[in-house]
Parts: sequence; C-alpha cells; structure tokens
Amino acid sequence: MEEECVSVDHSGKEMECLSIIPGWYSDVSDLFPVPGEIMSIKIEKILFKGRSKYQDIMIFQSLTFGKVIVLDGIIQHTERDVCSYVEMIVHLPLASIPNPKKVLIVGGGMGFTLREVLRYPSVEKVDLVEIDDMVVNVSRKYFPDIAKGYEDPRATLYVEDGNAFVKNTAPGTYDAIIVDSSDPIGPSRFFFEKPFFEAVSKALRPGGVYSTQGESAWVFLDIIQKLVEDCNIFFKGSVNYGWTNVPSFLSGAIGFVICSTEGPLVDFKNPVNKVDVDIISTKSESPLKYYNSEVHTAAFALPTFAQKVLCPKK
Amino acid sequence: MEEECVSVDHSGKEMECLSIIPGWYSDVSDLFPVPGEIMSIKIEKILFKGRSKYQDIMIFQSLTFGKVIVLDGIIQHTERDVCSYVEMIVHLPLASIPNPKKVLIVGGGMGFTLREVLRYPSVEKVDLVEIDDMVVNVSRKYFPDIAKGYEDPRATLYVEDGNAFVKNTAPGTYDAIIVDSSDPIGPSRFFFEKPFFEAVSKALRPGGVYSTQGESAWVFLDIIQKLVEDCNIFFKGSVNYGWTNVPSFLSGAIGFVICSTEGPLVDFKNPVNKVDVDIISTKSESPLKYYNSEVHTAAFALPTFAQKVLCPKK
Repeated sequence: MEEECVSVDHSGKEMECLSIIPGWYSDVSDLFPVPGEIMSIKIEKILFKGRSKYQDIMIFQSLTFGKVIVLDGIIQHTERDVCSYVEMIVHLPLASIPNPKKVLIVGGGMGFTLREVLRYPSVEKVDLVEIDDMVVNVSRKYFPDIAKGYEDPRATLYVEDGNAFVKNTAPGTYDAIIVDSSDPIGPSRFFFEKPFFEAVSKALRPGGVYSTQGESAWVFLDIIQKLVEDCNIFFKGSVNYGWTNVPSFLSGAIGFVICSTEGPLVDFKNPVNKVDVDIISTKSESPLKYYNSEVHTAAFALPTFAQKVLCPKK
Repeated sequence: MEEECVSVDHSGKEMECLSIIPGWYSDVSDLFPVPGEIMSIKIEKILFKGRSKYQDIMIFQSLTFGKVIVLDGIIQHTERDVCSYVEMIVHLPLASIPNPKKVLIVGGGMGFTLREVLRYPSVEKVDLVEIDDMVVNVSRKYFPDIAKGYEDPRATLYVEDGNAFVKNTAPGTYDAIIVDSSDPIGPSRFFFEKPFFEAVSKALRPGGVYSTQGESAWVFLDIIQKLVEDCNIFFKGSVNYGWTNVPSFLSGAIGFVICSTEGPLVDFKNPVNKVDVDIISTKSESPLKYYNSEVHTAAFALPTFAQKVLCPKK
C-alpha cells in the first residue's frame, strides 16, 4: 500500500494521520462537516488519486466494500452498496411512468445511473451531462463493466455544466431527468436551488418525472424540508420524498426528492413498470441487486419524525 | 473528559489509543469482529464504566447521538436512533395481534422495549427477564424517564437467565415474546439456537407472536438464513424477516425475525392495531418517533439480494 492513512479535505491537502486510523479511510471532510460521527473503511490499496479542475478524486480497493469512490473527501459509491443508491434513484422515477423514452442524467459521470436507465427497452435516448471528464475517464479505467454503458448507441455524453445544459434545453424535451449529484455544497450546489428546479420542470414534458439525491432525514431534515418546499413551487404534479439504506453513507440512509410535472397523473407509490420481473429477466448478465416493486413502494414510508416535518397533513 | 479515547474489547481491557481516534468511541470488538468498517462517535463525557458478572458496560454522552450505551465494545443504543430499533422490535409483533395482554421480554434490561409494550392499553402483564441487574440499575440512574416503566404495576422484573426462564414457562402462557438481546455470541448466544426457539414456541399461545433481533442482511445474511430456517421448524404460523434503519448500527440497518405459532392467522404485513393513531394520541408525553403503520408494512419489503436468499419462492 502506498499510503498508510489518507483523508483528503476540501483544499486537497491530506489531513494529519494523528486524528485518524492508520490504514483506514475516514469519511471526514471540511467541505460538508458532520461533527460527531465518522465512518471508516479499511483500505487494501489506493488505486487512483488525482485532482481535476473541479474536485479531488480517489479510488481505493477496500477490504469489505470492494472499490470505493471518494470525491472531495466524501464517499460517493462503494461496489458493495452502490446498488441501493443507483437502482433507487433511477427506478423510483422510471418505473413510475409508462414507456420512458428520453432521459437526461445530470452528473453521474461514473456511469452507474446510466446503466440502470439503459435497462429499459423503451428508452431511445439518454443524455448524460457531467462537468468533470476525469470522473468519466476514471470510471472507464476502473469500472469498465459499468462504463460500457457509454458505448450504447442510445447514450450521449456531454462534458458540460449540467446547470447550463438544463437551462438551455428546449421545453418539454425529456420524459425523465435524474440528478445524480454530490451534496448541496461544492460543485453541485446549483442543483439544489430554485432556478435549477424551475429549469428542470420546464425541460420535462407534462407528467414528466424528476429525481434528485435528497440527503438523509436523520441528519439533514432541515435541508430536505427546504428542498421539498422549493420543489413544490415548480412541480405541480407531485413532490415526494423516498429513501433507502446505504451502509457506507452517513447514517446508513439516503433520500431522494421525486417529483412530477403537471400532466398525466404519476402515482409514484405504485409503479406501472414491474421492473424486477420484466427487465431483470432480459438482462440476466447484471441482475438488479436491490430494487424490486416492494422496496419501491416501501421507499415512501417515512419514519414518523420525518413524516411530521415533510408530510404535515398526515 | 476523563478519558481521551476508549475502545473496550471482550476481555475488558482498553485497547491502545494508537489505532483509534482520540476523543472518539470506535465500535471495535473482538467479541464480534467485522473487519473492514468502523463507526466512530465523538465522546463528550464518559458517564459510566463498569464490568458486571456478565459483560462490560459503558455509557457516554456523545456530541450528536445523545447518550450512548455500549456492552462488550458494541453499541447497543443511542438516544438519537434507539426509537427505530425498539419501536420496530415491539410494534411489528404487537400491532399485528388484537388486544395483546400477556407479554414476555427477554433481555432489554434498559427498559426501552418495556416502555413500548406498556403503550398498549390492552396489556395486563409484562414479564421482563434480564440476567444482568447492573444493566437495570444503570438505566434507572441514566435513563430515569425510560426506566420508570419498571414502576408500572403491570411490569415484573426477573433478574434471571432468560433461557431457563422461557424453558420453565407453562405452555401457552404469553400472547407475545420479544427477545431484545445482543448479538448471537457472548451472553446472548443461546437466544439464537433451536432449543430456545422451541421453548419460545411452546410458551406462546396458539397464534402468539415472537420477535427477535435478527442482524443486518448487508453483513450477516448467512446468519439470518440459518435463523429463519431454524425458526421455520418450530413456528408453524409464519416466519418473516423485517428490517429497519438504525444509523449507529453496523451497516445502518438491523433486522428482526418475526414469527407466529400455529393458530389464528397473523398477517404481519397488515397490522390490525393502528398504533400510530390509536396509541400515540393517548400517550402524548412520549410520542412514537419512528413507527407508524406505513413503516410497519414497509419493513417486510426486502432488497432483492436478501429476498433471493430469505424468500426463495418469490
């Protein structure tokens, strides 16, 4: 192993080993500090460390989570549990509309969400807008099985600013827009603000669907409340909060804000596509690991403490 | 703060500070080692450290989780998220049968599960069998609001071995038995073995219900598979696996094996008691924080990777 202990903070410098566990990666970042808890994962080997124009990127082989992808000192994905995050952020919206055809992914340059979107035989066109081409290149090298989605003739990669891309999209272009971004600070902060929500709502067709990373209710209930309030301004179909369990994320949970525009009714809690039955069976080389229709519906069952804040009418 | 860093291993000796984070508690135990991930919680003050006849007990005030209870180097409860574990392990079984009257709790000496059982107006008698009276005494001192359940005239504490207690119980005594134990090693190992399951099934009335801590499917799917198989031998009503999200537990999740004996049908997925509406409203001084009828049903929606192993017929 090249390095005994590593924790990269926002400025790109390595933190002193003094405060962390030698040979382990610790999820500590002054970009998005959550004092009080630290998740540490045993490093077997650091595979890649680099700084792009936008962020620090690290990939390491861990003892029990497979390969781990870290951006700006925050774990983004681990091979062991990425299935929960990417399958849910994609299939919660896409399984809820009949025959999704045109899909936009904002962020997600690793290609994990792209692979999930491409499972749908109805999909004709997927645009993926990732600002940081180092993310795409790193994925092609270290996750070739995932990144091969980029070779699918239905997929087009735009190395651009997703915020500007959406604002320049012709109204009503997409059936679904999925924002697979990092947290509401740093390079992704624009994706959590009203002008972006407005642009997304316009870029969707009537009855189109939108999902975005929506943080954990255990930790950031105030942020989620604001996201839901702001989305309610622009998404006149419905605004929902769903969640799933991701062991390597802070609090072991992550949520999604899931919305639809005015138009044909979308009943997110009762998916029209039985993705687990219809699609796994035809794609048996990489079956779904987490998602099925039951966990889809269950994702919208919120703990009482979150329901009181996010669904006060109940 | 008296101590700068603490991690208690099985033998009761403190580990060297070298390998952990000064001022933080790290969930590392050679009693139940899970190499590859460590959860650490910032300590504000250690409130209690002791060794009973059975185990090491520590309580500390944390920065963001409230008071934290540690047995043999493994986090048992934190004030912030204990609601998820105790409300689910109690209400998944009790909300599934009409008018529970006689309930046995095995373990759970802190009194958290006792408080949940006492919410039911129909409950006439709760026996709680805890082998370690130091756990009860510590709870009375540091969690007086919780431990006041012991003063309820319906509650009786037995400081005894739960395994022997259940085996000596007259057949058909209880409507529900809840095993609120630590992991399947150490002092609690008997609660995860066939002779105990058999004794529980006999101590329950026909159509009686049983719930026990059942580990996380992300980490211990093999253990859970064995538990479910073994329970199927003795519980002829049904055997189910449900789960919930507990941030401070390994993988952010914990499961429960939930069973019923032969007799009146128990439909665990559709609770007969609407605990959230009927009972919170009459106990407003300590409302439910996590449980409601929607999360009850959702608890039985398993990720595909777990469903394939635990419900292979699906």
